[in-house]
Amino acid sequence: MAKEITSREENYSQWYVDIVKKAGLAEHSAVRGCMVIKPYGFSIWEKIQGQLDKMFKATGHVNAYFPLFIPKSFLSKEAEHVEGFAKECAVVTHYRLKQSEDGSGLVVDPDARLEEELIIRPTSETIIWNTYRDWISSYRDLPLLINQWANVVRWEMRTRLFLRTAEFLWQEGHTAHATEAEAVAEAELMQSVYADFAENYMAMPVLKGTKTENERFAGAIETYAIEALMQDGKALQAGTSHFLGQNFAKAFDVKYLNENNQEEYVWATSWGVSTRLMGGLIMTHSDDDGLVLPPALAPIQVVIVPIPKPSEAISIVADRLKESLEAAGITVKVDNDMKKRPGFKFAEYEMKGIPVRIGIGQRDLEKNQVEVARRDTKEKVNIPLETVVEYVENLLQDIQQNLHQRALDFRAQHWSVTDDWDEFQAILKEKGGFISAHWDGTKETELKIKELTKATIRCIPNDQKDEEGKCIYSGNPSAGRVVFALAY
Amino acid sequence: MAKEITSREENYSQWYVDIVKKAGLAEHSAVRGCMVIKPYGFSIWEKIQGQLDKMFKATGHVNAYFPLFIPKSFLSKEAEHVEGFAKECAVVTHYRLKQSEDGSGLVVDPDARLEEELIIRPTSETIIWNTYRDWISSYRDLPLLINQWANVVRWEMRTRLFLRTAEFLWQEGHTAHATEAEAVAEAELMQSVYADFAENYMAMPVLKGTKTENERFAGAIETYAIEALMQDGKALQAGTSHFLGQNFAKAFDVKYLNENNQEEYVWATSWGVSTRLMGGLIMTHSDDDGLVLPPALAPIQVVIVPIPKPSEAISIVADRLKESLEAAGITVKVDNDMKKRPGFKFAEYEMKGIPVRIGIGQRDLEKNQVEVARRDTKEKVNIPLETVVEYVENLLQDIQQNLHQRALDFRAQHWSVTDDWDEFQAILKEKGGFISAHWDGTKETELKIKELTKATIRCIPNDQKDEEGKCIYSGNPSAGRVVFALAY
Repeated sequence: MAKEITSREENYSQWYVDIVKKAGLAEHSAVRGCMVIKPYGFSIWEKIQGQLDKMFKATGHVNAYFPLFIPKSFLSKEAEHVEGFAKECAVVTHYRLKQSEDGSGLVVDPDARLEEELIIRPTSETIIWNTYRDWISSYRDLPLLINQWANVVRWEMRTRLFLRTAEFLWQEGHTAHATEAEAVAEAELMQSVYADFAENYMAMPVLKGTKTENERFAGAIETYAIEALMQDGKALQAGTSHFLGQNFAKAFDVKYLNENNQEEYVWATSWGVSTRLMGGLIMTHSDDDGLVLPPALAPIQVVIVPIPKPSEAISIVADRLKESLEAAGITVKVDNDMKKRPGFKFAEYEMKGIPVRIGIGQRDLEKNQVEVARRDTKEKVNIPLETVVEYVENLLQDIQQNLHQRALDFRAQHWSVTDDWDEFQAILKEKGGFISAHWDGTKETELKIKELTKATIRCIPNDQKDEEGKCIYSGNPSAGRVVFALAY
Repeated sequence: MAKEITSREENYSQWYVDIVKKAGLAEHSAVRGCMVIKPYGFSIWEKIQGQLDKMFKATGHVNAYFPLFIPKSFLSKEAEHVEGFAKECAVVTHYRLKQSEDGSGLVVDPDARLEEELIIRPTSETIIWNTYRDWISSYRDLPLLINQWANVVRWEMRTRLFLRTAEFLWQEGHTAHATEAEAVAEAELMQSVYADFAENYMAMPVLKGTKTENERFAGAIETYAIEALMQDGKALQAGTSHFLGQNFAKAFDVKYLNENNQEEYVWATSWGVSTRLMGGLIMTHSDDDGLVLPPALAPIQVVIVPIPKPSEAISIVADRLKESLEAAGITVKVDNDMKKRPGFKFAEYEMKGIPVRIGIGQRDLEKNQVEVARRDTKEKVNIPLETVVEYVENLLQDIQQNLHQRALDFRAQHWSVTDDWDEFQAILKEKGGFISAHWDGTKETELKIKELTKATIRCIPNDQKDEEGKCIYSGNPSAGRVVFALAY
């Protein structure tokens, strides 16, 4: 089974596609650019959702649901926003089909044309701020801290499973505040919630920073991002949180009376992560034998496999062990399928990234032990039955930490600092990764560098140091380093 | 606050709308026929989702996600299915907007017309069975037991919040089986899962039965339904489970090799409940003071209100009580808002249907007691602090049972058995409810009765008794009674 995966070295893109397909995560659908998220892939997404939802609620947010459709006129109300999204919109123009008069089949009924076209939401700022107008009248109505889990559509021409699809699943937070400072603090808070989730649950290190004007969300004053590094040396924007200023409040006329009874425009943020995180999760940890999952997000953390096949004696031990592990809060599957050999099962669970595999054979029973194998390093050890629960508890923590550390090490090895343009280009060509370099702060230079190297400024790091220097490309003065990379 | 609600007697429809709006459950959006589910309404939907999802998983189902879009040609493949849905489809015809050449604004870009129009899913049988073709080749791939939580669109002309909206949220299960018997058993199982949920969580009694051919899902061989009764005497179809035979397998050419290596078409079911359940929940229990929620689905089960306003001494007791209640698995809110009077808060929590309210005043502290009020009967009692947790635990169970019993009693009072056509019509006009009557089994009679009285056959009860009789309308022979009602 593992043999069917292309190695990373041979063809990284194909390796990614192989894992997504062979681990049963997703596949392309009959609709161009749209994917089917398969049950195993969806169960990982449910773990991601569940944890993020808890973190959103713990920071005071509540969920709601807004319409899928956005009237065309709404999109036009915020100038930069429409500029950013108009070119990739799915447009509903009719609300009925009928049988064609010549009997050739189903056609759009021309009598059922909508007066105003509806856009499938590419993001919901416009419909939500149109709604907030009625919900907000006084400072007592603020802040509004609302999130929604939803599907959105952006008509991408080149799609890749999870990383870029026409329809994707995401959450979008939309908050309203009385003051600028409060809105900025909210946008920063959500960036740190995303970073916390990425580091501590996905075991995926991320850089926190702000986007340049050129890379900002259409309609934002400031975009806070988390940027991860994939094993091919390319960066992945994993989540963004936007300070929107009063742009949408002004576009949709959302005002409130402050404590002094004066009317003011409301301040806004929005923030989102999507099924793209699945792509990041896969590419951060997986290897040439398949998916590798951090225990915190693994739908099944431990699989128990009887060797060479299930017997009554082994089943009793396996079921008892399952119970004990579950009592310790661990999710366990016992594979009693008689039709498959253990070797086949081992390869299958490796492919699916199950963090820990426990093998139980007849001889193990006699010795009162089991074999415990960890997915990340492939190490196997024999462990006495009476201590196996404690051992596995520690092992799961250890795997979680090891995956994080391994990814941190990879990033450190792919972190370059340079002041030399030739070296900058050589690094991009030869090893990739993040490059810390000076930039003169102009859009022209940024775009020129992108044109010449395909590298973009991933972020201006939150922890950027004041440092006089010269722009890596133009030689003009710079006050600090920014982070470049090739990116997804 | 409560004063703002129209009474049921005065105007039942307006009463419903008032509750939905004033309890903060939902509102109409700027998009015709689409609603906004507000945070409090959504938190109830999350409870419904969470419990159903558990029950689906406990019966062996897994979640997945299929595309929002259905190619027009897919709809046409199952003849009855397309007949049922073509007239209410939102159709995507273009994938780009552009600025008009005369500068008048955003227009659909005629160059971005789709080769084949895409339908926003009204239900997903077609796209899913097109996918299952690749997933199923052998009996070893069966059964496939998959569910998805999704939004769907049916372009309804007359909409009502939760009960009938153009876009709604739902779950749709789509299962594939090797045999007819197994598929029928699955469809029946899901009907009973829905009934279990309705009775034991929603405290909403439901009739279980099958639909007549005329009321069946477009493309089904048999539709199993649960039917509830609202306080205005009208029935609400609350959930359906369909045995689809091999209709979709044939339409999408989904075959499998059986154990004898022979090719056969796969057998199918589909089943769904939607945000319509919210309408049923509201209308089953609520009264003229607002929403009434069964404790099992109340996002907040107990609210603690300091009287007349929060003080340090009261806060200490309130917080400690909250902790103790939470330790017993009860969800609690302490309302320390200084800006609102207790009377206002009482009315607000009544409106929101919080099952139990605990008032704590200065004099209560001296007596070491609190005042416990239940939402369903409005009874209030003083309870010693040391026994309040146990009291509330029992009270929540009691409220859950009482709401169920009250609804059962209401249904019993609105359950008529008649063999007389005049009486049949009089019952419909004067008291409504379910009417058990004989029917000759023909579509003609069914439609004639509907035309004359607006009543429809809600179901042929699962527990229908063999009983010779004469059709209530035609006088022709009948072998058993069916259940009629006016319906939503």
